[in-house]
Amino acid sequence: MSVAAFYERHLVDIKKAIITAAGKSQRTLPLQSLVDRDGATKTALQIIIEEILQAGIEEICVVVCPGDQAAYTTAAGPHAKRLQFIEQTTPLGYGHAVFCGREFTGKAPFLLLVGDHLYLSGTQKRCAQQLVETAAAENCSVSAVQATHESKLPFYGAIGGQLVTGRKGLFEIAEVVEKPTPTEAEQRLIVPGLRAGHYLCFFGMHVLTPLVMELLAEDVAHVGAKGGVHLSNALSQLAARERFLACELQGRRHDIGAKYGLLTAQLALALDGEDRDEVLSGLVELLAGKSR
Amino acid sequence: MSVAAFYERHLVDIKKAIITAAGKSQRTLPLQSLVDRDGATKTALQIIIEEILQAGIEEICVVVCPGDQAAYTTAAGPHAKRLQFIEQTTPLGYGHAVFCGREFTGKAPFLLLVGDHLYLSGTQKRCAQQLVETAAAENCSVSAVQATHESKLPFYGAIGGQLVTGRKGLFEIAEVVEKPTPTEAEQRLIVPGLRAGHYLCFFGMHVLTPLVMELLAEDVAHVGAKGGVHLSNALSQLAARERFLACELQGRRHDIGAKYGLLTAQLALALDGEDRDEVLSGLVELLAGKSR
Repeated sequence: MSVAAFYERHLVDIKKAIITAAGKSQRTLPLQSLVDRDGATKTALQIIIEEILQAGIEEICVVVCPGDQAAYTTAAGPHAKRLQFIEQTTPLGYGHAVFCGREFTGKAPFLLLVGDHLYLSGTQKRCAQQLVETAAAENCSVSAVQATHESKLPFYGAIGGQLVTGRKGLFEIAEVVEKPTPTEAEQRLIVPGLRAGHYLCFFGMHVLTPLVMELLAEDVAHVGAKGGVHLSNALSQLAARERFLACELQGRRHDIGAKYGLLTAQLALALDGEDRDEVLSGLVELLAGKSR
Repeated sequence: MSVAAFYERHLVDIKKAIITAAGKSQRTLPLQSLVDRDGATKTALQIIIEEILQAGIEEICVVVCPGDQAAYTTAAGPHAKRLQFIEQTTPLGYGHAVFCGREFTGKAPFLLLVGDHLYLSGTQKRCAQQLVETAAAENCSVSAVQATHESKLPFYGAIGGQLVTGRKGLFEIAEVVEKPTPTEAEQRLIVPGLRAGHYLCFFGMHVLTPLVMELLAEDVAHVGAKGGVHLSNALSQLAARERFLACELQGRRHDIGAKYGLLTAQLALALDGEDRDEVLSGLVELLAGKSR
């Protein structure tokens, strides 16, 4: 088989995506309104869906809180017909929300995104497309990661591993730890080649094989009354069972659930888009106290 | 009666407010999330409600599209119990939306605000409080206005009139015209003392007497199949029947439905609030391309 044929066969395999949006503090974030790079006003959900569609995905499943489907259908605008909804009826954590999509994904690999992040690519290809193409080419699960200062470890899942020989920004994952302590990180997650005090933390975007759903099933079956199902635990087991890579993408993520996250995301979109000059002028006027 | 007693009697009279939020393109704007001056994340609706409550209002009626009540109740957060909802079942224009609140207001004067504007006061007193206090002291309907360049006349209702002798920023309204042409404005709406080419346009905030509901009733009764009921028409008649003032408030308005309106409102809130330094630093980092 030629290299081109190999790539083509696998690129067409990733056709499904899950967006998780059932977190209690996260539910209304995909409904927020922003002006996208193209100058059009869209909801965050529309911007996420367009990121996914441009990666070649055809079917999208949104995991929502019971009752949120109508608002999300409206917020999806012209893309509403692309969406399927699954309700997460018990809030058992992020891993459980992903697991809610198991019948939708079936035996297929899938792209997984969170509903409260927007991504700004540093290249022509959007972040999801960069990730999907890497996963298709490598024919395995790939998680997007970014080098993150140790002070931010309490907020993320982090990986340990080794650079794939000769491949810039691509790592073989050996370990996955959810919100590691600095000591854990130093003992288990140092990745050669990163700046001192930096670790590879998840970027909120993964391409995963169906094995993840099997691993999550075990966690869900054993979750206690007060426990939650973390995705990181299943990903840690995935790394032990299959080839599992981490990839630094060309781009930035914006958590729109953070304080001033929407503001920062909107400014980043505007400064990267066709209204850059207009928005910069507006900023200067506002700072000078002269607007309106 | 002493002056103080007179003021007190009338200040306590304005206890009701209507927020209109049933416009098709406007429905989701009050649900948008912003960080307020105090650093707390709130919906636009919460910020509007707090503006109203700080003006001494006790009962608030929100005119919504059928089906929107649940989302608005959630968006009102801690203020939800303050709200009554009325559905505008046929989209017959802004005047009709106001008229939907007639049973709520009954024989009482009321504060009227639009659900898609946020106000930033230039003083300690918020804009709604400035307006309510003026209306109570003058014991008549008062509309907030701002001097607006003639290029923006197509977007607003405008008034003609005369400065109340010896009162800065307070005008006796003689005429009200909805979206006047430049010729109409020049012939009917020139207000002595404004800069050349400027007219007094509505600011989106009024205190109105119950007579407005009677005047609207006539317009609603005669609306054609394709027509809409403008508030300006009723206000024009109000000026002929009662003393009706316009007041320039110390503050700015932000139309969050305009393109980049949310961005501008968020920046204005942040630059006026306790996170000013943090947001300015964030702006500089973002402009320098160094964020995250």
